[in-house]
Amino acid sequence: MPAGQQPAADQQPAAGGRLSRRHLLLGGAAAGIGAAGAIGIDLAGRAGGQAAEPPAEAALTGAATVPFYGAHQAGIETAPQAHVTYLALDLADQTDKAALRRMLRILTDDAARLSQGEGALADAEPELAVRPARLTVTIGFGRRLVERAGGAAPGWLRPLPAFGVDRLEPAWGGGDLLLQVGSDDPLTVAHATRMLLKDSRSFGALRWVQTGFRRASGSEKPGTTMRNLFGQVDGTVNLVPGTPDFEKLVWGAADGPGWLAGGTGFVLRRIRMDLDKWDGLDRPGREASVGRTLTNGAPLTGSRETDEPDFAAKTAIGFPVIPEFSHLRRARSADPNERILRRGYNYNDAPTGGSISNAGLLFASFQADVDRQFVPIQRRLDELDLLGEWTTPIGSAVFAIPPGCAEGGYIGETLV
Amino acid sequence: MPAGQQPAADQQPAAGGRLSRRHLLLGGAAAGIGAAGAIGIDLAGRAGGQAAEPPAEAALTGAATVPFYGAHQAGIETAPQAHVTYLALDLADQTDKAALRRMLRILTDDAARLSQGEGALADAEPELAVRPARLTVTIGFGRRLVERAGGAAPGWLRPLPAFGVDRLEPAWGGGDLLLQVGSDDPLTVAHATRMLLKDSRSFGALRWVQTGFRRASGSEKPGTTMRNLFGQVDGTVNLVPGTPDFEKLVWGAADGPGWLAGGTGFVLRRIRMDLDKWDGLDRPGREASVGRTLTNGAPLTGSRETDEPDFAAKTAIGFPVIPEFSHLRRARSADPNERILRRGYNYNDAPTGGSISNAGLLFASFQADVDRQFVPIQRRLDELDLLGEWTTPIGSAVFAIPPGCAEGGYIGETLV
Repeated sequence: MPAGQQPAADQQPAAGGRLSRRHLLLGGAAAGIGAAGAIGIDLAGRAGGQAAEPPAEAALTGAATVPFYGAHQAGIETAPQAHVTYLALDLADQTDKAALRRMLRILTDDAARLSQGEGALADAEPELAVRPARLTVTIGFGRRLVERAGGAAPGWLRPLPAFGVDRLEPAWGGGDLLLQVGSDDPLTVAHATRMLLKDSRSFGALRWVQTGFRRASGSEKPGTTMRNLFGQVDGTVNLVPGTPDFEKLVWGAADGPGWLAGGTGFVLRRIRMDLDKWDGLDRPGREASVGRTLTNGAPLTGSRETDEPDFAAKTAIGFPVIPEFSHLRRARSADPNERILRRGYNYNDAPTGGSISNAGLLFASFQADVDRQFVPIQRRLDELDLLGEWTTPIGSAVFAIPPGCAEGGYIGETLV
Repeated sequence: MPAGQQPAADQQPAAGGRLSRRHLLLGGAAAGIGAAGAIGIDLAGRAGGQAAEPPAEAALTGAATVPFYGAHQAGIETAPQAHVTYLALDLADQTDKAALRRMLRILTDDAARLSQGEGALADAEPELAVRPARLTVTIGFGRRLVERAGGAAPGWLRPLPAFGVDRLEPAWGGGDLLLQVGSDDPLTVAHATRMLLKDSRSFGALRWVQTGFRRASGSEKPGTTMRNLFGQVDGTVNLVPGTPDFEKLVWGAADGPGWLAGGTGFVLRRIRMDLDKWDGLDRPGREASVGRTLTNGAPLTGSRETDEPDFAAKTAIGFPVIPEFSHLRRARSADPNERILRRGYNYNDAPTGGSISNAGLLFASFQADVDRQFVPIQRRLDELDLLGEWTTPIGSAVFAIPPGCAEGGYIGETLV
């Protein structure tokens, strides 16, 4: 669970001097949430026995949309939705370059329509498409797809180096095509995922599906950093969309192949969290392991979540206040280029085999160069990170995220 | 998927002359949603570059609570939350009557605290408890638990009779103790479920966990009947809390054992839906199978969802407009006592074995007498229900839901 060095993107959605195109979507989201206010008034009226107007259709959170077309794909700068499904396909042998092009045209068309609340072209259940709730579909390529298309793959587009902490299960790794489907409405995620799978299955076979969640939209103040299932504030330090750092470290794949300009790199790590073992640790031990308080995520040397940690501070008996082995210290780099955009989710699947828990984190990060940004952070954590006592990476996958496209184009057109 | 004969409870949350205690919770929920309005304004302000006040803490949807104590358990009259986890435990051999009492006291205390946004007594992650988002925990008893307690079990508290359509998998059936955990926030469901499992595991072993969802809170107009993953409006006909029919048919377990007074019966059927096969059916075929339109769920003889179906209406060539084999017709009884409270959820789990779908309905119903209310409906569907071509019951479980309790008491105190 590495981390970068900036305030969380989801904490300061409109931070930074420049507002990117994607930021404008917040206007739409805000309209949606504002609409919920009307519902509140309506319900309150009913509960009090008074008549009240129903909320305007366009004002419901389900009506909020994120633009699909643009220089970058949606679902990266987008403030994380409450629900996500990641899925990976293995290409069929007969899926050649021409077939890839057909597939990407279809998936682009599906994503463009569904994200705007319309049924897909071959949608048999268009009624399920009418609540996009900020639906985004983000498409990524594994090395094999890039090679099948005859393109040059960036050097980092391969399995991550083996880390000592890894206990990787093949069921959760690899894949030729990635789809990230996010929405504030779980039914929307289910329907969009179904449509995309139906439309891609003649081109390849489903390899894995991973589903995650954060707090429901509207459940807490916007911009609140998520908590993981250990109860920790997780993701305070993050790149902020619209800032020069974000442009450089997420979109700045300048030395990559040309088709990737405007794109980025994606890492998904499935990190099992041993909740039973974690239960054996008291609160001081828990706070020492991460270097932050449990109450509000402040560094152990500070009082507010966004306080800068003081790594030099010592306790009365001379030990560092933020321990050497803490996650906060190990994840931090002296090199400002070793930062990433974290956009992870909790998972909590049905327990198996007598256990009462099957939970963890879908650690997801975007970075222009996986080798230069993600790998050094993970190396430091691999060497020493007390949190690793209770966490185990069991899945790992790397994808290249091509740029967005304009209306009439398709995702991947720069490659295929 | 049987159905009763009243407008959906979730469609008319404040319908009926009398407002039950549980209905008052809508005031709280409304306050929560109203709060989201403030967020909308806040975000809109930010997007436009203007300053705005953050929403009041108490006004977030996550702050909405459902009262725990009362004559009936929460989670039954409660308008269905967006997320649910049902789980069943098998009692350990050593869990005798005294142990059952201890277990129920602990679970009651956990449920009472968590539903009000407080950590459980032994909660190691109380920070995850602060967004109840209408959390309810509903406790149910299987026959073995009732007998272990030395109580009289109602006659219907046993596996349902075998139906021809059933392809039951043991993994999804039975259980001695049921917990239904519902909330509008998926993280809240995960944390509450974890606490309840930790506190009950010395008394028994987890048998199954089933997780379901509806549209997100605030995504669509309150009272909209849910759609299932076939795209159908599902649950139009339902008992309405606060009405005399509801009192009689849900809470009226008058001829049951005394400990069950104020309680009810619960049936959970896991119904697999074959989405691939369903794709082979055109819209007229889909509408004929259920007897309702796909656009708005109106009976094929009507124009609005709540229109009363005209079973006598014929087509120009003399066939019934609502076919004999349609789900709507088969689920309907001439006997007004054969009605139930439906409170189901969609499920969409990770596909296995080369399939691209593992989806269906967690059909959940509450009724005072399972044998007299649920079984006749299911018998009619078993004899003839075209929808059964695309659906398969793969799990089945029956529980008695004891009454609620007052502060200081515990759920199950009338039995154990």
